[in-house]
Amino acid sequence: MRRQAGCSHKPAMRIAIVAPSCRLTEEAAEQVHEIARRRGDCQLSIHPQCFMSDGHFAGPDKARLAALREMMADPAVDAVWYARGGYGSNRIAEAAAAGMPEEARRKIYLGYSDAGFLHAGFHKAGLEVAWGPMPQDVVRDGGEAAVNRALDWLVRRDPEALEPGVDGPAMAFNLTVLSNLLGTPLEPDFSGVDLIFEDVGEHLYRIDRSMFHVTASPAIRKVRRIRLGRVSDVLPNDPAFACDETAIVESWCRRSGIAFGGRADIGHDAANHVVPFPVRND
Amino acid sequence: MRRQAGCSHKPAMRIAIVAPSCRLTEEAAEQVHEIARRRGDCQLSIHPQCFMSDGHFAGPDKARLAALREMMADPAVDAVWYARGGYGSNRIAEAAAAGMPEEARRKIYLGYSDAGFLHAGFHKAGLEVAWGPMPQDVVRDGGEAAVNRALDWLVRRDPEALEPGVDGPAMAFNLTVLSNLLGTPLEPDFSGVDLIFEDVGEHLYRIDRSMFHVTASPAIRKVRRIRLGRVSDVLPNDPAFACDETAIVESWCRRSGIAFGGRADIGHDAANHVVPFPVRND
Repeated sequence: MRRQAGCSHKPAMRIAIVAPSCRLTEEAAEQVHEIARRRGDCQLSIHPQCFMSDGHFAGPDKARLAALREMMADPAVDAVWYARGGYGSNRIAEAAAAGMPEEARRKIYLGYSDAGFLHAGFHKAGLEVAWGPMPQDVVRDGGEAAVNRALDWLVRRDPEALEPGVDGPAMAFNLTVLSNLLGTPLEPDFSGVDLIFEDVGEHLYRIDRSMFHVTASPAIRKVRRIRLGRVSDVLPNDPAFACDETAIVESWCRRSGIAFGGRADIGHDAANHVVPFPVRND
Repeated sequence: MRRQAGCSHKPAMRIAIVAPSCRLTEEAAEQVHEIARRRGDCQLSIHPQCFMSDGHFAGPDKARLAALREMMADPAVDAVWYARGGYGSNRIAEAAAAGMPEEARRKIYLGYSDAGFLHAGFHKAGLEVAWGPMPQDVVRDGGEAAVNRALDWLVRRDPEALEPGVDGPAMAFNLTVLSNLLGTPLEPDFSGVDLIFEDVGEHLYRIDRSMFHVTASPAIRKVRRIRLGRVSDVLPNDPAFACDETAIVESWCRRSGIAFGGRADIGHDAANHVVPFPVRND
């Protein structure tokens, strides 16, 4: 049983919402549903798995994987939209990327933060993925704009939704998530891309440590350049860290010989923009 | 100018204390000095760099590296004892392991937590390193016993100081530190060792994420088995995580085909024991 919002135009884009990490709140689901109904250019289908709960997660691994695979295989689905981040998609990403049904290749996959594990594995498997706002963002201040930005991009690839500095192949990741997928089977090919980081809820010493880790990786050293989105809700550092996040990222870029391309307009906030990963033609 | 504690026996082990991460407190320095004076079997030399301060760090990278290299090269030093953890040794570890003076190979290096970056790089470079209590631990409840345990091991390789389950080649790491050194030039060879983890001040979802990362590494899959020290000061998980730290580690061991060897007696506490890394004979 899925709740659906009607559409005034045909063919409306059919968007399935699943939760590979943490559960979607009822409040967010209702608000996103109402936005889609008013737009009339898309048909949202919220998988009931989104409301399951198993400790930290939106249901057990098995249920999250099954819902994701079901939507990947469904020919009536044009886009898979991850409900929210949190933590947990890494636990099912490798399985989801294995034995891919052909239908999965005709869709686009949108989300950010913890969804980076899926983005990495799915991009590596040849799927079309993009960093961008998620349904749960609707409850943020200004969240309706974030959700509309995501839908504008999904439905009509609105260039206004794109991170404005993107001028070639790019990928965006939460820095801590990226650090945790390096060296795993999910690690994609970063050659020649603009790699955009952001982070949230970390101490600056952890940002520094993650930058050490990430920029030491030979795979990361193949990027065209690194750009930095917002580092928000920084936890207190006692004593104060020696410098701010821009200086941290610049300094690790310098040490590792990677070009630093300045700041970028992504983050854990309502202003978060879309960064489509390169489409592989192999 | 270094403060020295006298010794009643000759030759006393000459132990140099440096701070590659965060600064040593005066209080801890005085207490450790007093312990060494009472023991009379070792001569402590606390490098003045230990009391430097530069934001988060015990002085700038250059000063921390210089103090460490000075003690590594000093023929009058038998052991280098890291003052405390925190964060920062990764910023100087690769430089410290490069262009090693021959004198550095005649010493033992002791510490834990953030010192794991140095342990990894130094072990890889052929030095003798060990996980074990540090001077700053003296201010913990029962900290005098921790410091004496470290000194008992440094001075006379007291088997009582060793982690009791060690029955072959072993290495110990803070899990988060290990996750952040995989894939860097510091990564050592883990083949055939008992790999012992512990962690402190993390949410359980982060322990789970780090275990995902670490156990996915082909380098880590060469270990004999994984054992788990204490996971302390766990930060609240909202909602509660699905299981405890033992179940987390067991489950990732099972998924990755690594044997789980049970719990181990190390951690960020006064009961922390010594785990000497294998001595390389090449």
